[in-house]
Amino acid sequence: MSLHFANRLNQVETSAIRELFKLLGKPGIISFAGGFPDVTLCDAPGITEAVNAALKADPAAALAYGATEGYGPLREQLAAFMQAKGCTDVSADQLVVTTGSQQGMDLLAKCMISPGDKVIVEGPTFLAAIQCFRLYGAEVISAPIDSDGVDVDALERLVDEHQPKLIYLIPTFGNPSGATLTLERRKRVLALAARTRTLVIEDDPYGDLYFDTPPPASMLALSREVPGSREVLAHCGSLSKILSAGLRLGWLIAPPELLARTIMCKQFSDANTSTFAQATAAQYLAAGRLPDTLAKVRSVYAQRAQTLCSALEDGLGQALSFVPPQGGLFVWARLTGADGALQDAGEWNRRCVERGVAFVPGAPFFAAQADPATLRLSFATADVEKIFEGVARMTAALLQR
Amino acid sequence: MSLHFANRLNQVETSAIRELFKLLGKPGIISFAGGFPDVTLCDAPGITEAVNAALKADPAAALAYGATEGYGPLREQLAAFMQAKGCTDVSADQLVVTTGSQQGMDLLAKCMISPGDKVIVEGPTFLAAIQCFRLYGAEVISAPIDSDGVDVDALERLVDEHQPKLIYLIPTFGNPSGATLTLERRKRVLALAARTRTLVIEDDPYGDLYFDTPPPASMLALSREVPGSREVLAHCGSLSKILSAGLRLGWLIAPPELLARTIMCKQFSDANTSTFAQATAAQYLAAGRLPDTLAKVRSVYAQRAQTLCSALEDGLGQALSFVPPQGGLFVWARLTGADGALQDAGEWNRRCVERGVAFVPGAPFFAAQADPATLRLSFATADVEKIFEGVARMTAALLQR
Repeated sequence: MSLHFANRLNQVETSAIRELFKLLGKPGIISFAGGFPDVTLCDAPGITEAVNAALKADPAAALAYGATEGYGPLREQLAAFMQAKGCTDVSADQLVVTTGSQQGMDLLAKCMISPGDKVIVEGPTFLAAIQCFRLYGAEVISAPIDSDGVDVDALERLVDEHQPKLIYLIPTFGNPSGATLTLERRKRVLALAARTRTLVIEDDPYGDLYFDTPPPASMLALSREVPGSREVLAHCGSLSKILSAGLRLGWLIAPPELLARTIMCKQFSDANTSTFAQATAAQYLAAGRLPDTLAKVRSVYAQRAQTLCSALEDGLGQALSFVPPQGGLFVWARLTGADGALQDAGEWNRRCVERGVAFVPGAPFFAAQADPATLRLSFATADVEKIFEGVARMTAALLQR
Repeated sequence: MSLHFANRLNQVETSAIRELFKLLGKPGIISFAGGFPDVTLCDAPGITEAVNAALKADPAAALAYGATEGYGPLREQLAAFMQAKGCTDVSADQLVVTTGSQQGMDLLAKCMISPGDKVIVEGPTFLAAIQCFRLYGAEVISAPIDSDGVDVDALERLVDEHQPKLIYLIPTFGNPSGATLTLERRKRVLALAARTRTLVIEDDPYGDLYFDTPPPASMLALSREVPGSREVLAHCGSLSKILSAGLRLGWLIAPPELLARTIMCKQFSDANTSTFAQATAAQYLAAGRLPDTLAKVRSVYAQRAQTLCSALEDGLGQALSFVPPQGGLFVWARLTGADGALQDAGEWNRRCVERGVAFVPGAPFFAAQADPATLRLSFATADVEKIFEGVARMTAALLQR
């Protein structure tokens, strides 16, 4: 006889993507499927220096329990990092350090969502966000997007119709969409949030990974210009894509009432984030090495993105449509069916895996009305030579009868 | 206008203990209030060696995302650690690494508790466990304990009456009780769990901190002797009290069906625990330094516990009753009211804080029927001289008119 599990598990499954990843151990496979940064770009010497400095400067701080809110010096560094990005009014006491930005989402969901509440996300969006919200009993509703991010007219209609508890957006270099919400749309979303008193979560793990020119200011930075919007805005940041995913450090900025509740929930979720990792990150940021690391990461990803986009255009031509991204980790594409070519990304991916290349079919990223012709390609972890070879295999798989 | 928070927040408050801790910054205060180990006993040189070895041996493993289940080499080390403690049938794939054992509880609660479900805990028990369960909507019921742990006759009646979703116990050197469940009672609890198909969570952060002789085998180890009990038993372990709380590493062992669900929930809670911390702990354990560290920690705590108990007997005599603990971090005591002395531990603590010493009144540790005469004293972080001075101040505060 089985244990009787909680009802909340009924509407959530281990992700289809997770199952796909089990196939990627195949020798020689070229993967565009990953959702993670290239770990070989990490500044391992700098992090080694930082952890040794942390253990020498204040071993007790790195080795003991810490405040649930986070390690003071790291909160100061993260506030300064946000200030430098235009969020000039963010202070250390307005942010809590989280165990990755995934925990930021989990805590916000725990604080906001009662079973049956509605949540609006982009269609498509980050799969783990959909599942996280569903685990708290949310009904997840999908708002359409284009290459400029969420369609604000449609979002407005959905908010008026469903009165959601929150809206979750990745406005900059979205996952999986690669899309960036325009400045004008950002302000309209903020005004909509303020008017309807609906919490907006701005998840921003990719904003620092721009190729040439910085993206529009974050919604957090812009909230100063839209009266009432800051009181209904939460912002999740992460060091995972810019410093190291292994430190498992993110942060959450929210209005005071909500921040206090996320801290209470964190107290009973994991008490505090590793002080060992926090003290290391604080030393790294204080050493001033992040700008150089970021510059390197940006230029490598820019080159890989350009290589992938050119190779896809050359190899697949009209069969695949996409808008080249300006930053982040992802190209979002769609099989057009031109000249009678395949339009099912799942089938294409099965053929590709047989030929030694993989991507992620787009369907799982939709909370509803999945488009089976879509797919996500990450250019982050394959070098230029592998990208050419991978696209050649994809082309052969598409032409296969 | 406020945001409208989730209903689950209505039955939980930031802990009273947390408020007390804000008072402890007072200069010169001697604190018996802590619930944490003495960080100065951490093997900082060993941990420094371990992190450098981890970053040298496999920087990618320490700096990248990792499997939600945990870092393979650490899972192997933790399984070996459990095997050495009599859990000979535990293998690496039966455990998941958690962000402290607090996360183990949070994941189990997320998997098991639907709003309105009942949970039985010891009265008194770990406050953050009560709050964690309430955040998932549990009605928390208190089972009486004595110095041999939970009263199994009473527990059996409560289980039959309430049909709880789970029973949460700290069977060894309990927090706050310091009590250890006897071998015979452990087996009876396992039989009760098997008979009623009720999940038991064995939270065991303190079991390695015995003073002279090891405590009875863990319920996990004993489950082999009680047919059907292993299928309804989860075990939470932690490196926080024996290696470093700053690494923020715990582990969870559960039957396969439940373990799979906790991993799914972890995927959407924090994705994975810091691989940087995990790789460090794996190197530390592989280096074989833990036994020496544990031997040192045990002897220091044994001396402090004995000092505190003797000083309390000498200073307070009949006014305070307690059973000296055989391990862990805590003395649980009760004001008897003998000779008309104060019987309100809250009032005593207020007087104590004024005189520069603090403990934690026991009332907040009860889910129901709080006993206002009880209190928790930790001997972990004060040295012998401070213990004498602290008890002298407590004595003066009790005699004060």
